[in-house]
Amino acid sequence: MSTTGSTKTPETANDNKWIGKRTIRPDGADKVTGRAAYAADTTMPGMIWGKVLRSPHPHARIKSIDTSKAEAYPGVKAVMTAKDIVNFPIDKSVMLGIQDMRWMCRNVMAREKALFAGHPVAAVAATTEKIAAEACKLIEVEYEVLPFVIDVEEAMKPDAPILHDFIKYKDKPSNIAGTLEHKLGDVGEGFAKADVVIERSFRTQPVHQGYIEPHACLVSVSDGKATIWSSSQGQFMVRAMCAYLTGLPQNDIRAIPAEIGGGFGGKTIIYLEPLALILAKKSGRPVKMTMTRGEVFHASGPTSGSYSTVKLGATKDGKLVAAQGTFCLQAGALPGSPIRGAAGCAFAPYDIPNVHSFGYDVVSNRSKVAAYRAPGAPIGAYGVECVMDEMAEALKMDPLEFRLKNAAKQGTKAAHGPVYPRIGFVETIEEAKKHAHYTTPLPKAKNGKLYGRGVASGFWFNAGGESSAQVNVNEDGTVVVITGHPDIGGSRASTANITAEILGIDYKKVSVLIGDTSVIGFSNLTGGSRVTYASAMVVTQSTEKVITQLRERAAKIWKIDPDAVVWENGEARPAGDNAGKFEPLSLGQIAAQASATGGPIGAGQQLNTTGAEGGFATHVCDVEVDPDLGIVRVLRYTAFQDVGRAIHPSYVEGQIQGGAAQGIGWALSEEYIYNKDGKLDNPSFLDYRMPVSSDLPMLDSVILEIPNPKHPQGVRGVGEVPLVPPLAAISNAVYNALGRRFYSLPMSPPKILATMDMAAD
Amino acid sequence: MSTTGSTKTPETANDNKWIGKRTIRPDGADKVTGRAAYAADTTMPGMIWGKVLRSPHPHARIKSIDTSKAEAYPGVKAVMTAKDIVNFPIDKSVMLGIQDMRWMCRNVMAREKALFAGHPVAAVAATTEKIAAEACKLIEVEYEVLPFVIDVEEAMKPDAPILHDFIKYKDKPSNIAGTLEHKLGDVGEGFAKADVVIERSFRTQPVHQGYIEPHACLVSVSDGKATIWSSSQGQFMVRAMCAYLTGLPQNDIRAIPAEIGGGFGGKTIIYLEPLALILAKKSGRPVKMTMTRGEVFHASGPTSGSYSTVKLGATKDGKLVAAQGTFCLQAGALPGSPIRGAAGCAFAPYDIPNVHSFGYDVVSNRSKVAAYRAPGAPIGAYGVECVMDEMAEALKMDPLEFRLKNAAKQGTKAAHGPVYPRIGFVETIEEAKKHAHYTTPLPKAKNGKLYGRGVASGFWFNAGGESSAQVNVNEDGTVVVITGHPDIGGSRASTANITAEILGIDYKKVSVLIGDTSVIGFSNLTGGSRVTYASAMVVTQSTEKVITQLRERAAKIWKIDPDAVVWENGEARPAGDNAGKFEPLSLGQIAAQASATGGPIGAGQQLNTTGAEGGFATHVCDVEVDPDLGIVRVLRYTAFQDVGRAIHPSYVEGQIQGGAAQGIGWALSEEYIYNKDGKLDNPSFLDYRMPVSSDLPMLDSVILEIPNPKHPQGVRGVGEVPLVPPLAAISNAVYNALGRRFYSLPMSPPKILATMDMAAD
Repeated sequence: MSTTGSTKTPETANDNKWIGKRTIRPDGADKVTGRAAYAADTTMPGMIWGKVLRSPHPHARIKSIDTSKAEAYPGVKAVMTAKDIVNFPIDKSVMLGIQDMRWMCRNVMAREKALFAGHPVAAVAATTEKIAAEACKLIEVEYEVLPFVIDVEEAMKPDAPILHDFIKYKDKPSNIAGTLEHKLGDVGEGFAKADVVIERSFRTQPVHQGYIEPHACLVSVSDGKATIWSSSQGQFMVRAMCAYLTGLPQNDIRAIPAEIGGGFGGKTIIYLEPLALILAKKSGRPVKMTMTRGEVFHASGPTSGSYSTVKLGATKDGKLVAAQGTFCLQAGALPGSPIRGAAGCAFAPYDIPNVHSFGYDVVSNRSKVAAYRAPGAPIGAYGVECVMDEMAEALKMDPLEFRLKNAAKQGTKAAHGPVYPRIGFVETIEEAKKHAHYTTPLPKAKNGKLYGRGVASGFWFNAGGESSAQVNVNEDGTVVVITGHPDIGGSRASTANITAEILGIDYKKVSVLIGDTSVIGFSNLTGGSRVTYASAMVVTQSTEKVITQLRERAAKIWKIDPDAVVWENGEARPAGDNAGKFEPLSLGQIAAQASATGGPIGAGQQLNTTGAEGGFATHVCDVEVDPDLGIVRVLRYTAFQDVGRAIHPSYVEGQIQGGAAQGIGWALSEEYIYNKDGKLDNPSFLDYRMPVSSDLPMLDSVILEIPNPKHPQGVRGVGEVPLVPPLAAISNAVYNALGRRFYSLPMSPPKILATMDMAAD
Repeated sequence: MSTTGSTKTPETANDNKWIGKRTIRPDGADKVTGRAAYAADTTMPGMIWGKVLRSPHPHARIKSIDTSKAEAYPGVKAVMTAKDIVNFPIDKSVMLGIQDMRWMCRNVMAREKALFAGHPVAAVAATTEKIAAEACKLIEVEYEVLPFVIDVEEAMKPDAPILHDFIKYKDKPSNIAGTLEHKLGDVGEGFAKADVVIERSFRTQPVHQGYIEPHACLVSVSDGKATIWSSSQGQFMVRAMCAYLTGLPQNDIRAIPAEIGGGFGGKTIIYLEPLALILAKKSGRPVKMTMTRGEVFHASGPTSGSYSTVKLGATKDGKLVAAQGTFCLQAGALPGSPIRGAAGCAFAPYDIPNVHSFGYDVVSNRSKVAAYRAPGAPIGAYGVECVMDEMAEALKMDPLEFRLKNAAKQGTKAAHGPVYPRIGFVETIEEAKKHAHYTTPLPKAKNGKLYGRGVASGFWFNAGGESSAQVNVNEDGTVVVITGHPDIGGSRASTANITAEILGIDYKKVSVLIGDTSVIGFSNLTGGSRVTYASAMVVTQSTEKVITQLRERAAKIWKIDPDAVVWENGEARPAGDNAGKFEPLSLGQIAAQASATGGPIGAGQQLNTTGAEGGFATHVCDVEVDPDLGIVRVLRYTAFQDVGRAIHPSYVEGQIQGGAAQGIGWALSEEYIYNKDGKLDNPSFLDYRMPVSSDLPMLDSVILEIPNPKHPQGVRGVGEVPLVPPLAAISNAVYNALGRRFYSLPMSPPKILATMDMAAD
């Protein structure tokens, strides 16, 4: 049934040669042939292996650690504990990007207390992985076991076990580590004007980013200088965090980005790198560390589980007049859940005069959460978009029509702050409404199976931030571009498209390299849907500087003024007849004379970019529900998204498809299951059920291009919006099939069956 | 007896904090602990080994090559011949730097003819080095053996076997591939005015650069893109030459410089890289190739052997009035001997009104010569400085006094072109004259041993050329600098000294990286004594751009005009009281606010530098000669050299000591010995006698600093001048001991004894 994606450019003609084209993926062949080098593929002479000893207890004070037997074990080269890591006292925040080093230094290794089952307590480096694992067992840790709390609602109760004495809420020790509030208008007055008010509560479970590649690194320390190969979403983040945690200055650390086998936000922080660095320094040997899948589940960050309440008020003609939301997010063992994304994005798609959105950041004895695609936003949207569906039903309106009536547009004031510039939300709804998916009737129920359709919308802030680029012209007229953030979603391809377009040369003549921390200026994380936005900006400005140089060189060759030279279609030409009569000079011809005209041609740019305006999407989803087995199957899925400009549509589609697939897993099957001892019962892909290819239909995408006026190519972010609508879209579709609403994810077979049983009662 | 080097700065006060200081060598610990990664240390998964089949004949037409048996041999993955290499037709020169690709494509693999014993004919890649070597033996090459010629004088004779039909001299096929002439004044008139005229002929043997590390590389080709790890004097040269020889565009090749275990000019060309690249492409596997020491001797370039005639004319008051020189240099099998260095540098130290200098480039059936430290200049200086000694004796003048009287200085017009700017030649002679070495009497003859002292001077052009640099400021205020030429003589240390000096920060806060071809702009070879000169220039300009940024950021923080901010002692300060009252901001404080003030701080510069003025040295040498055994031993050696500015004196001394040591080997013991079949008889360090540490005294250096006004730090080149004077200095010392002049190198025991025997007759 499925079509591939399509691109609509309602406001811009697309007469580009490379931008917007499906150029050959520079990372494709290496990845499919197994040549691409991931972090675990790296080896060094004399390399040894590091292993982590982890706490078996969800909550325990560490009274003592005796490593002497492990140190004496044959083959062991170094042992470390939290004592070897720089201690950031808990009374002073030290922010590094979105991470507070107080928590980071306690997350990579337990200091005063083990805070979750799986929390690192010590690490060993030995000549083999087996010896390192055996030696871990010889480390004697004396624990004082403490009562624990796992779930967010439990953790917020007044009598809950307290994880951190130093965290106070309303002057009392609490697991509420922080709050965030957005207010617009007066919700009291707003709800008073409403004809229909609906309030519902929702629960979601923590879900893991599920990257295929577990965390891995190799660290070598020589003459006090460290080289780190690791898989991350930011080599500069790896360098900075390792510098903070080990006390090394940044110029003594070189962080080299490996190819990355998925991150989705989960590789914006570090786990193994500082341990391997310390073990390498102690042992004098390069140290490799990799996580097992079990370790990834036990001790790397999923996103938050949540408990939310959403209340909407609308007039009977379908205008939203008030919205209130409370989003309680579980942070794991240390503060830092994505309440900004939940409380900030929840109501962002709509023009509502009165909004009150409140977030709670709540610690509990689980692994510390990490960013996961549009962190928090799917949680916020889940509740809001489900209530939107219920409200449309109450108002007897088509759910898309209801959204269209309330859609934010240019000039709308959002509760989280901005007055929107030109945005493309309305277009996503309009495209969905007229799309064949939405206009095609659902199958009739047959063989006991029921069919339903749901829709939902979503928003993500997008981000700019620091990026650096360098564009160098080779002697043969080919070009090498360097940027500084790992390529997860196709930044090498998009950079090549942009550079080739601006220079007017063949795409194949441009190679793009992801530089390590020693070869390119600071470039922030690949995350926040920022990379195409920010790197396109610095690449464009670098390339424009190169064109200035090319014009100067041509002017020098022709002995005319540089202002009398224009760059057109990959050639320098005299600007009109007055400039003189000269044969155009190609990039290759100018490059061949570079030495004679002043030296190598190349330029860079480094910026803290701003102006990445928000992104919006609307998803339509058809499901088939087997009420006897409780199985929900997605039959058809179409995502409509305004991306500003799709520099490389195949990668944009990949982002949209990936987000939808992850949303389907979150909605239907993925969850962390803890046993009564506070330990994770399903730390494997067998028991933690991510959707696989055979679970999914072709996921269609309709790319809308409403250019961001603040960006040279019109780019908005792409990668995070696609995970925002699916939870509600699927939930609404299941309701549409079953006539029964679910307020808790995942809608797994046991839960579907339980609800059906209740209905039968 | 020996002292270490000393530095004299007659014209400049040295109030620098880092420039001129012996800072800790950044490459030191890794090199002495064996951690430094040389080309042969690199491995890759799936890697296979390449081996070269070499011609056993010094001269033979290749009638056919049958590789079928080798291809069928178990374990063999690829076989190649010259057919796989891009053919540059011999009728059109294609220059790449100093190399003509017509010769390069025939040097890396024999095409029409095998031109020397050891010339590559085919190459095999197999799963082990042993299998590759075995398979080489299965390749059937049908040769038509041709007469050959080895020595330069033989090769110039009219009836000599002709190597290349297409080379014509005076319209006839010839082994004279090229000539070069410098003329100043009228030598006929000049010699007519002379009171004393001395003319002598000289012979030198080819000598090898003798780098400890044989050629080695690892090449991986994936998806049509090649990565090359190799030991060379220029990763950009490796990239460009491989691109030419394989047809790949430059953006599809990434050449990564390994640490280099010596080059001395001999690694300015490639041998294995294009073969490994082609074998990797054919096999789909990474290919490693290394040379044995025998292969290095047989098939990599030594410098030329030579036959020269030098004629000097002087008035009786000691003024040189005419000079004539003819320098016939053996190029090896393909054109390209360093006649420019021989004919150009020979008379360059002296102010002579009438000069005629002529060079012949002569091919013969030996491996093609490669650059060797001051290519050709030692050959030119050898004859001239020996005749200078004889002339001083004839005029009854002190040899230094005679040189001083005729020394070139600012304003002297040199035969090879320039009118000298401020140079420091006179100072080298004056320092030598008053130095304790020169004023200390020689030992008296005892136990049959004789003692002598010799002096000689020398010149090298030095060079600028293309260099690129990037200076990035990290978030913690440390700094990373990238340059693009391999660090052979300490460029990382000198770059760190310069950057720390200009920024006013601690040397330890600066790390320097040698970037590969994908991460930094084009940077020419490490050679020609150009790197400190050129890289200091681009590093200085990059750092000054960074300071401009730092001032702008401070101005932004203070909300004042950037022009009202000065950078002093590592801090931004308001420029006087009118600018406002603000506490100074350190580099670290500004770096910490980089994001808030505009983004990452960093800047680069790419230039084709000019203005590297010539370098001069005068050497004094004492020898002990045992006339019974024919053994010459250097007892004391002092080199006086104007380096402009010694950025890091320890490395400068190392360069001077290394040059003197290599000159001692050239003068006394090193030579290629060919047998009657035209094959090298001594291709090992056992039989090719390079001086070892126990052969040498401490080699003293006196560094003179007469700043080059065209360079921001006053730098001139350093590395090549030290090899120019030793041949004559030692020769003159041996004469001084024995009373008998030698006109042929090496002055090995057999030759000393033969001469003594002649004397006894």
